[in-house]
Amino acid sequence: MGAGPDESLPLLYQTQEAPDRDTAPKEVAMRHLMSPMDLSVEEINRLMDLAADMKADPDRYAHSLEGKILATCFYEPSTRTRLSFESAMLHLGGKTLGFASANSSSAAKGESVADTIRVISSFADICAMRHPKEGAPLVASLHSEIPVINAGDGGHQHPTQTLTDLFTIHTLRGSIDHIVVGLCGDLKFGRTVHSLITAMSRYEGISFVLISPPELRVPGYIREDVLEANHIPYREVVSLDELMPELDILYMTRVQKERFFNEEDYLRMKDFYILTPEKMKRARKDMFVLHPLPRVNEISVEVDQDPRAAYFRQVECGRYIRQALILSLLGKSDVLGQTERLGKSDVLGEMEPVTSDSAGSTAADRPFEGQPGRGCAGETCPGSERADDTRSEKEATNA
Amino acid sequence: MGAGPDESLPLLYQTQEAPDRDTAPKEVAMRHLMSPMDLSVEEINRLMDLAADMKADPDRYAHSLEGKILATCFYEPSTRTRLSFESAMLHLGGKTLGFASANSSSAAKGESVADTIRVISSFADICAMRHPKEGAPLVASLHSEIPVINAGDGGHQHPTQTLTDLFTIHTLRGSIDHIVVGLCGDLKFGRTVHSLITAMSRYEGISFVLISPPELRVPGYIREDVLEANHIPYREVVSLDELMPELDILYMTRVQKERFFNEEDYLRMKDFYILTPEKMKRARKDMFVLHPLPRVNEISVEVDQDPRAAYFRQVECGRYIRQALILSLLGKSDVLGQTERLGKSDVLGEMEPVTSDSAGSTAADRPFEGQPGRGCAGETCPGSERADDTRSEKEATNA
Amino acid sequence: MGAGPDESLPLLYQTQEAPDRDTAPKEVAMRHLMSPMDLSVEEINRLMDLAADMKADPDRYAHSLEGKILATCFYEPSTRTRLSFESAMLHLGGKTLGFASANSSSAAKGESVADTIRVISSFADICAMRHPKEGAPLVASLHSEIPVINAGDGGHQHPTQTLTDLFTIHTLRGSIDHIVVGLCGDLKFGRTVHSLITAMSRYEGISFVLISPPELRVPGYIREDVLEANHIPYREVVSLDELMPELDILYMTRVQKERFFNEEDYLRMKDFYILTPEKMKRARKDMFVLHPLPRVNEISVEVDQDPRAAYFRQVECGRYIRQALILSLLGKSDVLGQTERLGKSDVLGEMEPVTSDSAGSTAADRPFEGQPGRGCAGETCPGSERADDTRSEKEATNA
Repeated sequence: MGAGPDESLPLLYQTQEAPDRDTAPKEVAMRHLMSPMDLSVEEINRLMDLAADMKADPDRYAHSLEGKILATCFYEPSTRTRLSFESAMLHLGGKTLGFASANSSSAAKGESVADTIRVISSFADICAMRHPKEGAPLVASLHSEIPVINAGDGGHQHPTQTLTDLFTIHTLRGSIDHIVVGLCGDLKFGRTVHSLITAMSRYEGISFVLISPPELRVPGYIREDVLEANHIPYREVVSLDELMPELDILYMTRVQKERFFNEEDYLRMKDFYILTPEKMKRARKDMFVLHPLPRVNEISVEVDQDPRAAYFRQVECGRYIRQALILSLLGKSDVLGQTERLGKSDVLGEMEPVTSDSAGSTAADRPFEGQPGRGCAGETCPGSERADDTRSEKEATNA
Repeated sequence: MGAGPDESLPLLYQTQEAPDRDTAPKEVAMRHLMSPMDLSVEEINRLMDLAADMKADPDRYAHSLEGKILATCFYEPSTRTRLSFESAMLHLGGKTLGFASANSSSAAKGESVADTIRVISSFADICAMRHPKEGAPLVASLHSEIPVINAGDGGHQHPTQTLTDLFTIHTLRGSIDHIVVGLCGDLKFGRTVHSLITAMSRYEGISFVLISPPELRVPGYIREDVLEANHIPYREVVSLDELMPELDILYMTRVQKERFFNEEDYLRMKDFYILTPEKMKRARKDMFVLHPLPRVNEISVEVDQDPRAAYFRQVECGRYIRQALILSLLGKSDVLGQTERLGKSDVLGEMEPVTSDSAGSTAADRPFEGQPGRGCAGETCPGSERADDTRSEKEATNA
Repeated sequence: MGAGPDESLPLLYQTQEAPDRDTAPKEVAMRHLMSPMDLSVEEINRLMDLAADMKADPDRYAHSLEGKILATCFYEPSTRTRLSFESAMLHLGGKTLGFASANSSSAAKGESVADTIRVISSFADICAMRHPKEGAPLVASLHSEIPVINAGDGGHQHPTQTLTDLFTIHTLRGSIDHIVVGLCGDLKFGRTVHSLITAMSRYEGISFVLISPPELRVPGYIREDVLEANHIPYREVVSLDELMPELDILYMTRVQKERFFNEEDYLRMKDFYILTPEKMKRARKDMFVLHPLPRVNEISVEVDQDPRAAYFRQVECGRYIRQALILSLLGKSDVLGQTERLGKSDVLGEMEPVTSDSAGSTAADRPFEGQPGRGCAGETCPGSERADDTRSEKEATNA
């Protein structure tokens, strides 16, 4: 916390860098991470390079964040994600504090997210926030004096999962460009899938095979605003077997019971897309299977023995990319430092990609447009007036 | 833990200092903090000086408690307080462990607080205990081998909140003496307000403006035993506007729903005392607004932008004063070391102020007299025979 | 985690040592701790020597595990055990992360223990797992890339409690051999008691006095397969007073309400065996009282003042033996390194004692034979085909 913020200024406009203001007069903006699209392709690439270096030479970073504290503010339980963040911080020499569910937090007493993050700003140097309400981490970031990472906000965004997926593919294949990605399972309600498609749409030579029951196809705005707007080839198929031999990556997803409106639909569909050793025989020798975990039964445990099963390595990649992210948001790397727009002239501007590879004004540049189920936690949501909601019925299930 | 306690002695009489007994034959007493009145005015002043130095030069203290462990034993959730203690310990280079609610503790298996603290004494070097039952931390302190800090016991005491309030005023104004303090909201059930009035009664030239609905005025024992007994000027008013221009400090409090006996009373009163930018126009330019947080709606969010809104700075002050307290209770500062009575001849004596500025035998010297709702958690409460309970009906709501 | 596991191999066959394979070609097996009988008497003795050295010279070990992380995966709350592990790790300079109950973990989403431990393997260097289902930590150990310590699995095993008991006796008396041990209370359902009898059966000159109501006598398999098979003298008595003068150690246990099938039986029996100062008068001056804690009322609080009351010292011993265990399982001591069978040729083989002092093939060598209530958490339990279940009715209460 340094010598503390300048108390003569309203808190909203203060940053962690304030104490150094005299000796370092240039304004350095604090960055948050709300959506994978907040980062340019170059930033993501540099972040992945940093994560790879951390994986190759962990000792070099073992003391990088000594004296720094990560707060994990989880308004709903997500043990895997929380522990990944905490492990990331500990591996950098930092420390952690926080809460694992809302019923053990002041939220139960009616405190707003905006107030909580200002309190947390006095206790920690960076915050990973999980919240069942979409937009809550964004509201927090607007009132925070420390960097906020969205660790999942309802059905909206979970950017470190997307960064994990990208870094895993990069680690397994050496590059993200020029691959055929199969996405299998619940493609309608799967936040993870939507974010991954959107994030990969900025890379070269990507094509998608979308494997799902007709009822669980990707929403229209993904097809139109992301895939078609960016001229990305995709095929929609019903069978997991059909195009298996063409895939470089098979991304399996869980059929989440809570996304269904009735038990019957869930039971009918949940076993349609189970990956077995038999199905793996049709896949390439250099294909890799990913899964965001936890899995229930959509990947048979026999597949675990297959060298192409990469979902547990994905967990490890997730820890390293979070390390890289935390280090960078705390200004201890140059990953986010070589961008052009660092002046904090526009608070909302931080939410947009700083630089972008994608051509013109794609949906990818406007992370809050055309996405379902937005909503802010009890406060006016900045940017909501820009919302051009094209979602179809039933797409928003986290209201 | 050093080389461990001398196991030939009953545990009750052992202190952390035991291993050094041979080389340091003088008896150094272990101190606990149960009430703000356990500390003399000099001790509080030295504690605030230490906290101010920590705020000005945090690096100097970043390794002060390396190898030391704080246990946070929270029998009811209080995220803000717990995280403040944990952050304080981490900022001193220490580590933490503990539990955040009773249902995740051995208490659910029927263990007494006395047993739990003896167990915790083997795991940690200092303990912050929150408990819904009044007196529970006191019982713990009597059986503990490590310093115990009362982190809130029902409607009784919350001494680090009071120290936070004092240090915030000291930080904002340079001194605590000679100010007019307005206290607004629920003054009847507000533990925070009672403690602050009592603690401030030992400073020079204080006067109070007590702003509340008639139903929620301060209890009689505060008026008689604290204010009148110490000849402290006070006025009781119903309107927040009326004496606003005279205030140096405006201390807002939440109308806690759980203090009311019926929903109707709560709904009728809760909006009476909402601080708005309009009301702030009548206040001095150098007045400051404090609030123990969390707030619900008793301070309009528009007031946050006002430079006089100091409640988030208060949170930061709370972390620093807890740092100073932890460091001192662990014997790593001379804040508590220059007092006269360090011999542990009288266990209960530790609960009384070591030295006192206040004249004669005021209520402030007898923290367990004339206060409502005392009670110890399943054990005989030492000192309870001294209780001269003058509380009126309904004052004790935490039974 | 070093440079990460070799990703071309199935995870099951990898160990933490993999990255050093080139420079250290000999295979060094990763050890887990499922049962006290996984350790030979020599290993336990070396572990106790190490713990004693840690107790005598804590500073020497204060940085032993810097950079290492312990995961506490508690699928049911057990605050004392969890904090003991965490304190142990912190006292060695390590760090911790984890969860304190199942409802805050991914288990609620249907994830198997096998998957969870593979995830945890990417976050931590060693894991202490508590689980209500018997065999769950064993299943975890079979899929883990990091050492797993069973921190209690239902009514089955709680090996670090047994090590705590042994180390406490060793600390109090200088040796474990040639003592008369009284075990009092619920001897039928008491996992702690069964483990302690089994573990002590490998020492010289032990005899037992089994003090319980007729309904709560030790199960037949303990009498036959452990006591009689190893020619260990024992007497079964109903009165706590009767043989008190002969005891070197009196091990009291709680009458756990949850072990009874009806309230009436519990109320009738729970007060039969309460230790009082009066009863202590009949005991030797050098007898010591142990208790696994938490106690409810089976030891009167007046006994706490008796120098022979050692149950709080037992807690401290528990922390030190856990320190020694963690250090050894992470390969930072030679306690577990001088054994003969270190090749990981047989996964299940790790669960058996590495060397054994006990004569021939006793029940003690076959920790999974003849014990009640085994069961694995949702997976095929390796070794279950060896189960020769001799349990009588009602012995398994954790099904």
